[in-house]
Amino acid sequence: MKPPAMKLYGYWRSSCSYRVRIALAHKGLSVEHAAVHLVKDGGQQHAADFTQKNPMGQVPVLEIEGDGGPIRLGQSVAILEYLEEAHPEPALLPSDAVLRARARQLTEIVNAGIQPLQNLRVMQLLERQHGVDAKAWARGHILSGLLAFQAVAESVAGRYCVGDAVSFADCALVPQLYNARRFGIDVEAALPLLHRVDTACAALEAFQAAHPDRQPDAQPS
Amino acid sequence: MKPPAMKLYGYWRSSCSYRVRIALAHKGLSVEHAAVHLVKDGGQQHAADFTQKNPMGQVPVLEIEGDGGPIRLGQSVAILEYLEEAHPEPALLPSDAVLRARARQLTEIVNAGIQPLQNLRVMQLLERQHGVDAKAWARGHILSGLLAFQAVAESVAGRYCVGDAVSFADCALVPQLYNARRFGIDVEAALPLLHRVDTACAALEAFQAAHPDRQPDAQPS
Repeated sequence: MKPPAMKLYGYWRSSCSYRVRIALAHKGLSVEHAAVHLVKDGGQQHAADFTQKNPMGQVPVLEIEGDGGPIRLGQSVAILEYLEEAHPEPALLPSDAVLRARARQLTEIVNAGIQPLQNLRVMQLLERQHGVDAKAWARGHILSGLLAFQAVAESVAGRYCVGDAVSFADCALVPQLYNARRFGIDVEAALPLLHRVDTACAALEAFQAAHPDRQPDAQPS
Repeated sequence: MKPPAMKLYGYWRSSCSYRVRIALAHKGLSVEHAAVHLVKDGGQQHAADFTQKNPMGQVPVLEIEGDGGPIRLGQSVAILEYLEEAHPEPALLPSDAVLRARARQLTEIVNAGIQPLQNLRVMQLLERQHGVDAKAWARGHILSGLLAFQAVAESVAGRYCVGDAVSFADCALVPQLYNARRFGIDVEAALPLLHRVDTACAALEAFQAAHPDRQPDAQPS
């Protein structure tokens, strides 16, 4: 049976979209990509036709075919878990219970501990309404969060974040490191273990295909 | 076989600790509670003996017995997933794939979309270092996030957030509504569906036992 057609609403530079693109590519799942421009028109994610798909007004949204019409799933980690259950091979979670928990803990350090504090909406609010230096704010939270990520990963990392197989944790880490560099963090110097894992991931086709610069909506810098 | 002994490092008013307490009580699992005072001594979660347990310096941490000594798991959603896999009955996720995704999406709206923007550390930083009215900031993010939560829940809610069985989504929602009220949001008026679900949850023994006021470290207001 052919797997149902899927569509991913995302943005080339959105780290949460990037996570899902890695997972889809790792599992060999093809999707139609629909670009939602987070800056143009005041942010297309805030337009009514998109907030109907995701009331949070955020990408990514994975659209799958349901019996009664399309089903739209928001929140990147919920999407990763859905993909892992619907398409278990190749896996993105270890089989050992504690290592699964560790992969999810690392994922959530990024998903709940770092990214929400440096996403576009929050940075715009801080800068425009509160006069906060949002880049310095973002840099601080990214660095402290990734140092904690690295400390947790120390005991479980192999070639990748958790042992020698790619997991959710790598899907979360690599896009966050991409952001870290955008905000001027010297990843190699400050986060040597994570830099090593990032380099290993960068050699994989799934991570290459998911890279922001490879997306159809990418903009030359 | 007796399940391994567990210990939960938490704080009575921490909404992330509260989520895990609900899940533990729902599953009938007893744990030893270790209080980490988030305000006293500049925040005991920042002390070296705690950051060894969780480099993020956050509660909750679930400590379980491992072959080589205690294993400490951070990040409340990673802990919920661990508990669901290790102690599957009574379940906290539906069996249907799409409804599981929906329960996780709702959970992440709170976990990644709301709580990180209104946690103690962020509010202290905003107030002390940037002169931002942190209560107004928190109130705004809580209300907009819960409105999105409610919009997503509309299509799947029954007695609880997803149908007629308690799920992760309720474990996340009820503590966030507790915070919403602390910050002055009129939940009944602004969020009628969520208020109804909250009332249904409040009738359950697991939710009662997990309430902040029932914890040994609770402080009279």
